[in-house]
Amino acid sequence: MNDASPGPDASAAIFDVVAIGSALVDVLTDASSEDLARFDMAKGSMTLVDLARAGTLYGAMGPAIEVSGGSAANTAVGVAELGGRVGYLGKVAADELGEIFLHDIAAAGVVLGRTSRVEPSPDPADDRATGRCLVYVTEDGERTMATHLGVASTFGPEDLDEEFVARGQVVYLEGYLWDLDPAKSALRRAMEVAHDADSLVALSLSDPFCVQRHQREFLELLHGDVDLLFANEDETTLLFSASSFDDALVAVEETGILAALTRGAAGSVVVAASGPVHIPADEVAHVADTTGAGDLFAAGFLYGLTHGKDPESCARLGGLCAAEVISHIGARPRADLRQLASGAGLL
Amino acid sequence: MNDASPGPDASAAIFDVVAIGSALVDVLTDASSEDLARFDMAKGSMTLVDLARAGTLYGAMGPAIEVSGGSAANTAVGVAELGGRVGYLGKVAADELGEIFLHDIAAAGVVLGRTSRVEPSPDPADDRATGRCLVYVTEDGERTMATHLGVASTFGPEDLDEEFVARGQVVYLEGYLWDLDPAKSALRRAMEVAHDADSLVALSLSDPFCVQRHQREFLELLHGDVDLLFANEDETTLLFSASSFDDALVAVEETGILAALTRGAAGSVVVAASGPVHIPADEVAHVADTTGAGDLFAAGFLYGLTHGKDPESCARLGGLCAAEVISHIGARPRADLRQLASGAGLL
Repeated sequence: MNDASPGPDASAAIFDVVAIGSALVDVLTDASSEDLARFDMAKGSMTLVDLARAGTLYGAMGPAIEVSGGSAANTAVGVAELGGRVGYLGKVAADELGEIFLHDIAAAGVVLGRTSRVEPSPDPADDRATGRCLVYVTEDGERTMATHLGVASTFGPEDLDEEFVARGQVVYLEGYLWDLDPAKSALRRAMEVAHDADSLVALSLSDPFCVQRHQREFLELLHGDVDLLFANEDETTLLFSASSFDDALVAVEETGILAALTRGAAGSVVVAASGPVHIPADEVAHVADTTGAGDLFAAGFLYGLTHGKDPESCARLGGLCAAEVISHIGARPRADLRQLASGAGLL
Repeated sequence: MNDASPGPDASAAIFDVVAIGSALVDVLTDASSEDLARFDMAKGSMTLVDLARAGTLYGAMGPAIEVSGGSAANTAVGVAELGGRVGYLGKVAADELGEIFLHDIAAAGVVLGRTSRVEPSPDPADDRATGRCLVYVTEDGERTMATHLGVASTFGPEDLDEEFVARGQVVYLEGYLWDLDPAKSALRRAMEVAHDADSLVALSLSDPFCVQRHQREFLELLHGDVDLLFANEDETTLLFSASSFDDALVAVEETGILAALTRGAAGSVVVAASGPVHIPADEVAHVADTTGAGDLFAAGFLYGLTHGKDPESCARLGGLCAAEVISHIGARPRADLRQLASGAGLL
């Protein structure tokens, strides 16, 4: 495991998408609703936890499996699996989980930017290990997450390779990063760099609690900073303090930006200049694990958008990718997405 | 991930089974037969590889997932999931994969013996990391493995907690360990300790190539050292240099020991004092990954044997456990084995 392949040449390509996010390895376990209650976890949410809490939770967790994750990284892998050219910026430690993360994302064909691999700290209280996300999958396929960011929490402007960012046709940003001031500064700078290069800026709202924490700033971003919004139903409704998703849709239209909004089994809604379009969800025989559903929806949408598809086709492609990833454990695609999309006549 | 729970109290219990094996984390990837050919890997085999080769293979490998593995460890977890009392002896490094291994086996209810967690070597050429097994799963569900043992290769007599071993009703040994002289010495000593304590010694032949390497010694072990033999069809035939499995069965009978022999989709054969009994395999709708099939067969058999079942019932329980583990990715059970076995009237 000491030869994390650097992947395709990073020096020259123009990317369909450059994604920036928290580089994490997911630790997946089966859990019951009682398990969640015992640890005061709100089902379906993502909570940031410190090292001590992560240790307590992991110690009490059942047997698990480890799969590379990280919201924007999942999206980047999805775009690459569809055949898109993707770059990724994130931050891992020079440890085994970091190696696993770098291996898996490069093996999927994603080009890694000037990657920050920092040495773990000798001080055990200062956890500079690769970030990990404890994912509890309940019987209904829903996931509840406790994330210890580790070294991903130190992502800042100095980690932003601006030349790399400027090469993306779309620069895709993970809302989760807004929780950390240095990362927030880096994202604000990435938006400037993208716009200076005439690129689009896409933002994923990531999580309802993330929206609650940053509602005012996220709303402000919709006026000039962000060109494409990804959010689910709850996040959209919370963002506009709306009493219903339908009311929120009206508010989204008023912003004038392109929005791709997911509604789980109810499909998605694309709000474009021509008004909202509702797209049904793909059928899934058995929902095994919803982790990555939103990330892979974004992947399909972004691939379509950067390949001349209309917004509705983009959403259909997003729905197909989301359906694949929730049919099995883990937030990275397992089937050949390009073949699936081609078979469905969506490429 | 810093709080690998020590699991149940290790100080007093009498165990149904004490298992000794190479502590490994499996790195699972989907692969084609062409991938295997490109790397000169014989389909279905396990090859030991050095650090450089492991690095080359991992660098060329597609995206993977990490799951705790190790043949005897898988068996130990299976016995524990059925409700048995199990102890395990193996060797990991004080690194992240080691933490993952220790967490998962303890979380399954296996009691860890005086575990050797050794610090990784500062010399990168001297790989004292936790061992890992690169597992290539082809479309037919067959697995082909390249194992870098890392620190597991240093298991020796000094790691054998004899008092712990003596507490097992059955002491279960992994044939793979025969490849390493210090481990072989430890296993020979474990056999003496077990017999001094009036325990049974069970040996798994692990792999056809392992049988080819150690045929003479394995045959000698059947005369007094081993009381219960686990092997698959190929291993059994090779062990006795037989021209067919039926001929090999005659040779097994002549040894007079108890043998539980697996035949994949053709089920299993138990050779006991009363002669061979053929048991059909459980039906599996879709074989996802055969990794761990033999290990989990042994788990079911050992649970039955230590709970007063006759050999045929033991083999049925083994078949049920094997069927569960091949229905999904990874060599550790995901369904509730105790519930499955109870539902099938086998407990």
